[in-house]
Amino acid sequence: MSDIVSPFAPDAFPDLPPVAGFTMATAEAGVKYRGRRDLWVLRGDPGTQIAGVFTQNRCPGAPVDWSRAALDAPTHGPRLVVVNSGTANVFTGQAGKDAVLETAKGAADAFGAEAEAVQVASTGVIGVALDASKLVAQFPDMAGRMRPDGWEAAARAIMTTDTYPKGATQTALIGDTVVTLNGIAKGSGMIAPDMATMLAYVATDADLPQDVLQALLADYTGPTFNAVTVDSDTSTSDTMLLLASGQAEHPRVLGADDPVLAAFRLALRAVMHDLAQQIVRDGEGISKLMTVQVTGAVSDDSAATIAKSVANSPLVKTAVAGEDANWGRIVMAVGKAGEPAERDRLSIHVGPHRLARQGQPDPDYREELGASYMRNSEIEFSIDLGLGDGAATVWASDLTHRYIDINADYRS
Amino acid sequence: MSDIVSPFAPDAFPDLPPVAGFTMATAEAGVKYRGRRDLWVLRGDPGTQIAGVFTQNRCPGAPVDWSRAALDAPTHGPRLVVVNSGTANVFTGQAGKDAVLETAKGAADAFGAEAEAVQVASTGVIGVALDASKLVAQFPDMAGRMRPDGWEAAARAIMTTDTYPKGATQTALIGDTVVTLNGIAKGSGMIAPDMATMLAYVATDADLPQDVLQALLADYTGPTFNAVTVDSDTSTSDTMLLLASGQAEHPRVLGADDPVLAAFRLALRAVMHDLAQQIVRDGEGISKLMTVQVTGAVSDDSAATIAKSVANSPLVKTAVAGEDANWGRIVMAVGKAGEPAERDRLSIHVGPHRLARQGQPDPDYREELGASYMRNSEIEFSIDLGLGDGAATVWASDLTHRYIDINADYRS
Repeated sequence: MSDIVSPFAPDAFPDLPPVAGFTMATAEAGVKYRGRRDLWVLRGDPGTQIAGVFTQNRCPGAPVDWSRAALDAPTHGPRLVVVNSGTANVFTGQAGKDAVLETAKGAADAFGAEAEAVQVASTGVIGVALDASKLVAQFPDMAGRMRPDGWEAAARAIMTTDTYPKGATQTALIGDTVVTLNGIAKGSGMIAPDMATMLAYVATDADLPQDVLQALLADYTGPTFNAVTVDSDTSTSDTMLLLASGQAEHPRVLGADDPVLAAFRLALRAVMHDLAQQIVRDGEGISKLMTVQVTGAVSDDSAATIAKSVANSPLVKTAVAGEDANWGRIVMAVGKAGEPAERDRLSIHVGPHRLARQGQPDPDYREELGASYMRNSEIEFSIDLGLGDGAATVWASDLTHRYIDINADYRS
Repeated sequence: MSDIVSPFAPDAFPDLPPVAGFTMATAEAGVKYRGRRDLWVLRGDPGTQIAGVFTQNRCPGAPVDWSRAALDAPTHGPRLVVVNSGTANVFTGQAGKDAVLETAKGAADAFGAEAEAVQVASTGVIGVALDASKLVAQFPDMAGRMRPDGWEAAARAIMTTDTYPKGATQTALIGDTVVTLNGIAKGSGMIAPDMATMLAYVATDADLPQDVLQALLADYTGPTFNAVTVDSDTSTSDTMLLLASGQAEHPRVLGADDPVLAAFRLALRAVMHDLAQQIVRDGEGISKLMTVQVTGAVSDDSAATIAKSVANSPLVKTAVAGEDANWGRIVMAVGKAGEPAERDRLSIHVGPHRLARQGQPDPDYREELGASYMRNSEIEFSIDLGLGDGAATVWASDLTHRYIDINADYRS
């Protein structure tokens, strides 16, 4: 909703086809914003399976508490996802819990579902309880106009400080059957200003049991959503759901490791990667996108910790914004991560240029090479630790004056 | 050396008296800066004991490697501390190691000491090897003009991006004997722009063995230097030395826990606290000083982790800069720390005003109260977790446009 759009905004929202078994509607509930839709309901036909991953923040919002618990409740009939923007309903005490229950019951009544079949998410300001009556008042009308399309309207309805709506789609074969995966997401930072933030939904017509969906989510959350960072601040509301209607007729899948899922796995990872990239490319105040590749670490986890230490370092982020190939700050950020690293085995590339190797500047490197490369809008740092086979990649936005503008001036 | 001085700069450098057993000199070695002194040598008479703590960064500079090892080497004769500004001599490979050895040997020759008796520190740009010959050329002349005073000149000689020189002094009784503690420090961030950064030296005439000095340092580094943060970036050169000449005649101290040290402990802590405060108050781009007090945590370590999570959060830091009593961001930062915390037991004060309690906004709180308080130049957040007796306090600078200016434009 910013007036300045990210330089990485795509030209257009991708064309998301219907996914068998899912319908949806959006509405203007008037939670906070005026003159725009702020409510989305997604309905999955009976038999729909849902897997989810939620924020690790120790102070989660009431909607996260509800949805995490509801995920495991046995339900029949249709499944619903209800998302509003405008308030995060986080840190709102009993009033917040009551609002979630009222929302779930209201949706259940209007759509003929059980309350435990309703996944609720809210995104917006922290500390303001949701007036659930505004949502509940919309549900009967929405129930009468549910349609299999409308993904772009949905992506727009859940935006807060996002500067563009985020969507992705893929198809994959399971056996000889084509299945579709559609995803939408919102977020303009791990946490956006005062907002509790990242939401992502992927729907497919594949016929997969809940435990398989959960295993797939667990496999790909790390290298996709958990591999992007804007400001190192973890939202109180992060939610990623994977919904499968089961309406595609393909060979029965025996488990998450079934080879028949090979193409589906690639497609799911591609959708999640695409959505995560769209989030970091809409990171608050972004002027350049930074990719940090770490190799040669003692483990993948160690590599990820080091990559995040670099990607979250204010000094590295300001160097990128300032177009400075400042590898001294990268050495610092590698060292401060606390993971195994040996200064004298470290080598660092920026794009194709080797800046440093074996603990000292590369004698063949000239400042002009780095300075020229840093004028690109996408910057890649490659760091090899020379210790083992661990590797990880993290994507991050830079730290700019505009980030300060957005976050020092946002609330009022 | 910035043209814009921190709003927290003191009116004048404190009056540091001579400390029996120590002499010093400064010089213009011309390592990088022109028209200012960039070299300091401190000499401790034979019998001087030195304790030190060094950066935990896994990519430390060559001077840190040397000094850490030299600390434990048995030496006789005088002890020396040699500090230059202009280059950090970090990530400089064999050339860096050679430069440290040349410096130590050169100083040893000029001052009649053993090389292992020389503590070497460098602060400045990373990746540029020190031309030790520039230092060595100064040593003979410096040796001829060593004096017991000159602490302010010393504090100025070791500055890099600091906007003011930093010093502190205390006296304490050990038995009936007055001992003096003088300290100087430099640093304008945990790491300043491209600089490898925090250095602190405290000298006393107390008669204390090395193991007692080391124990005292360990006791007070946590709540003083390790409790301030500018940008969460840990320098590759952080060094804190405590030197005791032993020239004061007081009762023999039996160990670090000897009650005779009670007043000395208080004085040492006061000097370390004062120097650490002077560093954070000179934090890059600082407009407001933030104090984060955490109580009710399950342990002191847990409290410190949570306090640092709040103090390092870009969203909290920008809220302080923007004079926004944004407790939603504090809740987020508490929750993301990963330490035990229960949303519904949390209470948060800003200054005297309670913003939130028991997991929701305080009904008596009005935005005007917080808005008015946030106009102060020193802001205090008190966070009670309601879980246990763990407590910690952390001091931090805010995140401003000027921080971006300094760090996006520094090197060139």
